[in-house]
Amino acid sequence: MDLDARRKADPQHWNLATSIRVLAMDAVQAANSGHPGMPMGMADVATVLFRNHLKFDASAPNWFDRDRFILSAGHGSMLLYALMYLTGYEQMTLDQIRNFRQWGAITAGHPEYGHADGIETTTGPLGQGIANSVGFAIAEEAMRAEFGDDLCDHRTWVISGDGCLMEGISQEAISLAGAQKLGRLIVLWDNNDITIDGRVSMSDATNQHERFHASGWRVLSCDGHDAADIDRALTEAKNSDGRPTLVDCKTIIGFGAPKKQDTAAAHGSPLGAEEIAVTRSLYGWEHAEFVIPDDILSEWRQIGSRGKTDREAWQQRVDALPEDARDEFARRVSGEVSDKLSPAIAALKEQAIEGNPKIATRKASEMVLEVVNPHLPEMFGGSADLTGSNNTLTPSLGKFGPDNRKGRYIHYGIREHGMAAAMNGIFLHGGFRPYGGTFLTFTDYARGAMRLSALMGIGTIYVMTHDSIGLGEDGPTHQPVEHLAICRATPNTLVMRPCDLVETAEAWEIAIDTDDAPTVLALSRQNLPLLRTESGENLTAKGAYILREASDTPRVVLLASGSEVEVAVKAREALEAEGIATRVVSVPCMELFRDQPEAYRREVLPEGTVRIGIEAAIRQGWDWLLMGEGGSDRTSDFVGMTGFGASAPAERLFKEFGITAEAVADRAKALL
Amino acid sequence: MDLDARRKADPQHWNLATSIRVLAMDAVQAANSGHPGMPMGMADVATVLFRNHLKFDASAPNWFDRDRFILSAGHGSMLLYALMYLTGYEQMTLDQIRNFRQWGAITAGHPEYGHADGIETTTGPLGQGIANSVGFAIAEEAMRAEFGDDLCDHRTWVISGDGCLMEGISQEAISLAGAQKLGRLIVLWDNNDITIDGRVSMSDATNQHERFHASGWRVLSCDGHDAADIDRALTEAKNSDGRPTLVDCKTIIGFGAPKKQDTAAAHGSPLGAEEIAVTRSLYGWEHAEFVIPDDILSEWRQIGSRGKTDREAWQQRVDALPEDARDEFARRVSGEVSDKLSPAIAALKEQAIEGNPKIATRKASEMVLEVVNPHLPEMFGGSADLTGSNNTLTPSLGKFGPDNRKGRYIHYGIREHGMAAAMNGIFLHGGFRPYGGTFLTFTDYARGAMRLSALMGIGTIYVMTHDSIGLGEDGPTHQPVEHLAICRATPNTLVMRPCDLVETAEAWEIAIDTDDAPTVLALSRQNLPLLRTESGENLTAKGAYILREASDTPRVVLLASGSEVEVAVKAREALEAEGIATRVVSVPCMELFRDQPEAYRREVLPEGTVRIGIEAAIRQGWDWLLMGEGGSDRTSDFVGMTGFGASAPAERLFKEFGITAEAVADRAKALL
Repeated sequence: MDLDARRKADPQHWNLATSIRVLAMDAVQAANSGHPGMPMGMADVATVLFRNHLKFDASAPNWFDRDRFILSAGHGSMLLYALMYLTGYEQMTLDQIRNFRQWGAITAGHPEYGHADGIETTTGPLGQGIANSVGFAIAEEAMRAEFGDDLCDHRTWVISGDGCLMEGISQEAISLAGAQKLGRLIVLWDNNDITIDGRVSMSDATNQHERFHASGWRVLSCDGHDAADIDRALTEAKNSDGRPTLVDCKTIIGFGAPKKQDTAAAHGSPLGAEEIAVTRSLYGWEHAEFVIPDDILSEWRQIGSRGKTDREAWQQRVDALPEDARDEFARRVSGEVSDKLSPAIAALKEQAIEGNPKIATRKASEMVLEVVNPHLPEMFGGSADLTGSNNTLTPSLGKFGPDNRKGRYIHYGIREHGMAAAMNGIFLHGGFRPYGGTFLTFTDYARGAMRLSALMGIGTIYVMTHDSIGLGEDGPTHQPVEHLAICRATPNTLVMRPCDLVETAEAWEIAIDTDDAPTVLALSRQNLPLLRTESGENLTAKGAYILREASDTPRVVLLASGSEVEVAVKAREALEAEGIATRVVSVPCMELFRDQPEAYRREVLPEGTVRIGIEAAIRQGWDWLLMGEGGSDRTSDFVGMTGFGASAPAERLFKEFGITAEAVADRAKALL
Repeated sequence: MDLDARRKADPQHWNLATSIRVLAMDAVQAANSGHPGMPMGMADVATVLFRNHLKFDASAPNWFDRDRFILSAGHGSMLLYALMYLTGYEQMTLDQIRNFRQWGAITAGHPEYGHADGIETTTGPLGQGIANSVGFAIAEEAMRAEFGDDLCDHRTWVISGDGCLMEGISQEAISLAGAQKLGRLIVLWDNNDITIDGRVSMSDATNQHERFHASGWRVLSCDGHDAADIDRALTEAKNSDGRPTLVDCKTIIGFGAPKKQDTAAAHGSPLGAEEIAVTRSLYGWEHAEFVIPDDILSEWRQIGSRGKTDREAWQQRVDALPEDARDEFARRVSGEVSDKLSPAIAALKEQAIEGNPKIATRKASEMVLEVVNPHLPEMFGGSADLTGSNNTLTPSLGKFGPDNRKGRYIHYGIREHGMAAAMNGIFLHGGFRPYGGTFLTFTDYARGAMRLSALMGIGTIYVMTHDSIGLGEDGPTHQPVEHLAICRATPNTLVMRPCDLVETAEAWEIAIDTDDAPTVLALSRQNLPLLRTESGENLTAKGAYILREASDTPRVVLLASGSEVEVAVKAREALEAEGIATRVVSVPCMELFRDQPEAYRREVLPEGTVRIGIEAAIRQGWDWLLMGEGGSDRTSDFVGMTGFGASAPAERLFKEFGITAEAVADRAKALL
């Protein structure tokens, strides 16, 4: 059907969808940068979705019981911005659209969470959105199970392109969603057969229907430019048989642009003034740049307020709750930390000092979770198939699954990246605080999603055990040496490496209390002695602190984290025995120490002493504490790793790689 | 069928397979650590494979035309070590097996490439092996197309577990292999239904047959404990219809261990002395620990020499080649660098100085490839669907595909991780030097495989363009800020960030000349002026060098890499104009500078000057050059990024984030 015939067949739909297309063309052209083809191709599908199916109220973008709309193909950001402007999201003004991709605008090149209400997650790195969506759908199921469908009863809709589906993370997401039977999850596949390099067939021959079916999905199809057919498919998609649903929307990228549609040329650059003019004319769209006629805008605005009645009814149901239930629901939705957290942590710390346990910090972490999880119903745990090693499962949680939506623990499978992205989705949905475990070295697999936790500024908690060569025999593939540096290099990430049960409890308290940055808990496989002697103040919150004071004005300061604090304490004993006044500074979190007032930092790290950093990892990231902060190259050194590890029992490795109290004492003496 | 019946039905096979099982049980028990269950479960399949199908000669493990055997489920390393010992690989002695997982042994917890001939690749991080294998199979097809099946005619066999298949990278590998119709690739799926957390169904419900079929694979099945059935399936697998083949081998993890088989308890820890004794007795195996009776060992050794005749015939064919062809084949197989490389680079450098182009370094990289690729038939390029952006395709290459095995460029699709792992496989196979492109920020997706390039010490080349906020409008999701630090944190990795065409040519020369470490080329999207004025010596090989000397004894030294060298040069002009003698040091590769003699380092970075590092990325990784190497905290500073970027035109971003010549000059003056 040609454009004219389509327009005439359903002028109302045509005008609505064309508004999206022209805004996308115009904004990309004005920015001289961006991706017009996808919004133009998916405008029809998005129009039908927003007009007839999506549960939302543009005047209340944060309504908890809204459907979530995830633009996994984030390069098509103008689709989202156009929909938000047209339906009347307050922050998404026409000026913002005009300033697409400009400094200070909320209309970034790719949708950025936090820029505007209504942007549910940051997308752009392909596959992240579809993997987030699994977390959204998990959280919805879990909240519905807990609070009932009067309060929680919504769907997760995703737009995904071929790029998202080629990324490996999509397979992790799809197979997890299928195994979990997330029937409220609907993925709209923008099946336009084009990638940046050309036709999909240049690099892929996947039968996506068969692939999704193999993972336990239902598959529907529609002509992505036929409003009635789209409506039929979306209606059917909502009528779940318990499986998640893929809707194959056959579309044309850059729909209607005569020279560029159905080619890679429509994907990632402005169409050009001439092509836009011709396309406008073919659309029968006679309005100037960025102009949406009042009648069409008004219709869009009505769509934007379609959900208002539903929302008000929902609000009445919330208001009618008994006060306790209402308060708890409000707390959960807001993400406010339970006032039961601190007492639980405090009690555990006291108990630790009394009990003096020699345990791995991964075991310490389990002990923390054992006292926290029963009191904090928002805790939602899991592991990428290392439950017994990560010590992430506690008895009170129960297992989340198709037959138990009240469970709060997920076996994510061997899917580190999918787990991390799903946890981001769980956090973003609201109601839960997700944590998940794997080995620290497999940060490598989860990096894409871990970076997005940091960029979005959300409180996903990564429980990363087996945090050094201390894991021993599994060898260098499993021994992180650069991963602490990698996590510390990532802006807005708290990297905590506690040395004992007390610090582990403190680290968890901070992690749960931090909702604007992810936390990486780096935990030992091997047993460690209790080093803290006082349980009062949360000293980990200072980032670094004096753990063992020198017998006199310190001539040597030993700085260490995690399992190497024990090494520092032993080295101090040796040095003190030789009359060298030596202080031990425990450094569980560099980021928090950096934020302390200078006076405190100088108190902990006085000038004029020898400083030695000790960590069973590479030096990168330590220099500012050793040579900076009043230190110097000549009076400092580092005892750690300079390359990859090896396969052998842990004790042997520490000795062979020279991470010992003797080595530390020797270096200190050499520098004095 | 019970064990007794199996033993009696085929005692010869039984004894061969049982040798593997007992060695695995014994070695794991002796190490008190390791994974016995998988070798016990896959012993029958591996025995049939080595006995009847795999083309190899244990006395010549590096025979180029051998079949490649990839143990993707690397935790089952004892399967590989047992096979190597039994068939007679010289390095794999019984002592090595006894020292499994001990310091200095070649029998690491997971198979480590380089520890012994016959270990084709390092595995353990799940999914890597199956993704490497795609590269092996690609290289085999390409070498066969180039040199004929007289010289190259072999298969790639992979053992993969459920863990490998759950990792997202496996989907990238599978779909790439299917699209490329790699008919010589055969994956043996150890379908034991167990993961570490328990039964597969706890986390996965994938129909693997359907999934592989959807990606263009042929699927066969066998009873993984029935030698005849295995033999039938492997015979059929070799008879390819053009598609890669999955063989579903139904197995029992920990086969025969009465209390632990078919449970997660058999996976990752020793069975215990008692269980081992009972299992031995059930096996009817009356020999002591680590003892393989002579008759059985002798049979295994015969299997190990099965391929000798084939190998000798192959060698005769090689010897019979005309001298030129033989030399070139030998060069390609050895990986020796072509003597045409240096002259091509030298000519381009001279041309650059004459032409004085202002171009992006990604474009410069393309110009290098344009002069190198026609002369070096080993160059094998590709991109993860960013060909036009990464500038990785040059006209002479041709496209590798099912219909053109002589092509030397692959559209890897949107599969950064799969691409990186495939490139590792291409390198490991021999014959080619793989390079592949994506955006630097998507290092995040490829990390797992990039780390393995470094750990294995192989020369995979990563062409990482759009290397800073200089990419502009795509915004923070696409702007690397921590990725240079991440790559530099990784041991044994050359991270090169050239500032112009001359340095880019030099960087490529080094990258191609380095076969024991991967290279990351960080290249700009934006245009940069030519800054080098001399084309002679490869100064990039020094890692850092004086690019612009101060007019007098330097009071300020500005250090910068890549696009920020231009900023440094401008800041120098401003400072010199104010009478402040200022030197500019270009730092294209920190790792190479670190390896220079101290005298040279001091010459470049004299003591007592102000030092400012400039890079549009975070500071981590720079401190040793600023505060170390004779510098100090008080006299140094860094101009770069302190957090994530933003979406806006690049020039605006540099201004807003304060990475400008003025800011550099101001900081220098403040420090003087």
